Amino acid sequence: MATNLQVQLASRPTGWVEESNFRIVESPVPKPGPGQLLVKNLWLSLDPYMRGRMSDAKSYATPVQIGEVMVGGVVGEVAESNHPKFKPGDNVVGPLGWQLYAASSGDGLAKVDPKLVPLSYYLGVAGMPGATAWVGLLEHCQPKVGETVAVTAASGAVGSVVGQLAKLQGCRAVGIAGGKSKCDYVVKELGFDACVDYKAGNLQDDLKAATPEGIDCYFENVGGELMDAVFRRLNPFSRVALCGLIADYNATDPYGVKMIRSVLVNRVNIRGFIVSDRQDLYMRAVGQLAKLVAQGKIKYRETVAEGLRSAPAAFIGMLKGANFGKQLVKLA
Amino acid sequence: MATNLQVQLASRPTGWVEESNFRIVESPVPKPGPGQLLVKNLWLSLDPYMRGRMSDAKSYATPVQIGEVMVGGVVGEVAESNHPKFKPGDNVVGPLGWQLYAASSGDGLAKVDPKLVPLSYYLGVAGMPGATAWVGLLEHCQPKVGETVAVTAASGAVGSVVGQLAKLQGCRAVGIAGGKSKCDYVVKELGFDACVDYKAGNLQDDLKAATPEGIDCYFENVGGELMDAVFRRLNPFSRVALCGLIADYNATDPYGVKMIRSVLVNRVNIRGFIVSDRQDLYMRAVGQLAKLVAQGKIKYRETVAEGLRSAPAAFIGMLKGANFGKQLVKLA
Repeated sequence: MATNLQVQLASRPTGWVEESNFRIVESPVPKPGPGQLLVKNLWLSLDPYMRGRMSDAKSYATPVQIGEVMVGGVVGEVAESNHPKFKPGDNVVGPLGWQLYAASSGDGLAKVDPKLVPLSYYLGVAGMPGATAWVGLLEHCQPKVGETVAVTAASGAVGSVVGQLAKLQGCRAVGIAGGKSKCDYVVKELGFDACVDYKAGNLQDDLKAATPEGIDCYFENVGGELMDAVFRRLNPFSRVALCGLIADYNATDPYGVKMIRSVLVNRVNIRGFIVSDRQDLYMRAVGQLAKLVAQGKIKYRETVAEGLRSAPAAFIGMLKGANFGKQLVKLA
Repeated sequence: MATNLQVQLASRPTGWVEESNFRIVESPVPKPGPGQLLVKNLWLSLDPYMRGRMSDAKSYATPVQIGEVMVGGVVGEVAESNHPKFKPGDNVVGPLGWQLYAASSGDGLAKVDPKLVPLSYYLGVAGMPGATAWVGLLEHCQPKVGETVAVTAASGAVGSVVGQLAKLQGCRAVGIAGGKSKCDYVVKELGFDACVDYKAGNLQDDLKAATPEGIDCYFENVGGELMDAVFRRLNPFSRVALCGLIADYNATDPYGVKMIRSVLVNRVNIRGFIVSDRQDLYMRAVGQLAKLVAQGKIKYRETVAEGLRSAPAAFIGMLKGANFGKQLVKLA
């Protein structure tokens, strides 16, 4: 008989996450109650926001409690169902956590179509990261044809979509990423106009060369010194979608941003946002992105870790930028 | 025969402005050419933005060149006119600079009514600073009844209007100012609900006590550590109108803002703005404010320096917070 496996939060990290912050626990496969369904999880998404849930600092969402299963998006297959809307064999996506099986009331679960795009894509380009790119770029930055869009973590699950959407909108897309291979991928595979390797040691000059007409839209995933570098290149009336600050998540003392003056003199609009606030746009965004991927207009890359037990190390690697594209864990 | 007196920019400051950065020069009173008018300046406004014009750092406006008259708003009286719209004796407000007389084409000049409010008010509550408060608070922050509005430099020309407008909108108004006498004035005279004295050495705790329900709107005139303190108190979906950063203007190395994370997790909207971008609102704002002052619904205070030769010292004092309310120079 099958056994469930869960990754629970064992302790809260201070600074960098360590594997000892997690505990891997075997337990019986849950029985779905009346109106519930049982999902066999196939793919687990690893995302930077999870770092925030490991902390008990005040944030937009409740932290994971010690001993609880880590939160996370999953694609799975319905194994049993007492729910009228789901039947065994259906593929679903939803917040079922770092585990092999989950019983669910169906809340927050959506059926997905494995014929349109591969199932794992519903955790990335056709899921929360894709919708995040869509909402931040198209709703908040509102780039106009001919403008320059800059995005950090440009080869990642969100950044790669931001730049490709910017190109489809007729903009100049400039990525910022760590390392030559990521930058090559961003330009040669994804079709960005330029990519700045922030590890090359020449960030400000390289960014200036890559943005000869300045920056009109900035989609921020990273923060830290990259934010100051981009702020120095912002044009009047530019827009900043603040999506993530991964450079700060593991810092005990966050970076101090010096170029606030640029926000003033350039009359910049900065908007912090969380995609889950925009349920009104989510399904439309995901639907459009799945179509664009199916049509070959948006490219997408994944890094896959094998098996739930590899999730903690893969998560830590992602926080350090070791992944290339969307980081997933293959569960079955 | 009358002689003109001008304050010119002699050199660019590094760090704090010094009197030696200015040069006071006598010259003949200009003759108005065809279509021009001659204005005898009565009041000169001193404003923090002028610090920016003394610098050649890239900004939204052209810097004052060495040897040029310092820019500044003035209220004056038309002395001679070859212009069809103005006649001798008319009172006007406009950007006529740090000098006793100015010839003008009439561009940027508006007639003002000395019977509605005192002439000097057209440089403050019923002028650019008042319109700045209006646009930043009502257009960008859009406070709703019951929300908490925080404003820095709360006893100043802009901040004092921000808090009083917030009260008129049914909000809790919390000022931040330097020193007990300014804070007493803000609460007892202007009617703010609370004022935090940032010089008292207990900024974060005092701010927390003054904002038990957090902060929904933040009107920023100062920046620096005040910004971090307020960012720690921001509520979800709060709005920040970034109007000034006087704490940074004289710093050779600007303060690094650490609490950018709050902008993300609270989905904050920050907007840098310059009132001159909103000519569409300016006259309406100024008109409404003049009426509110005339009705006694908005109170207003000035610090007056006597004579143009006192302008450099008064300006430096204002940058250091030595003024109390709107800083003016009485020219005649």
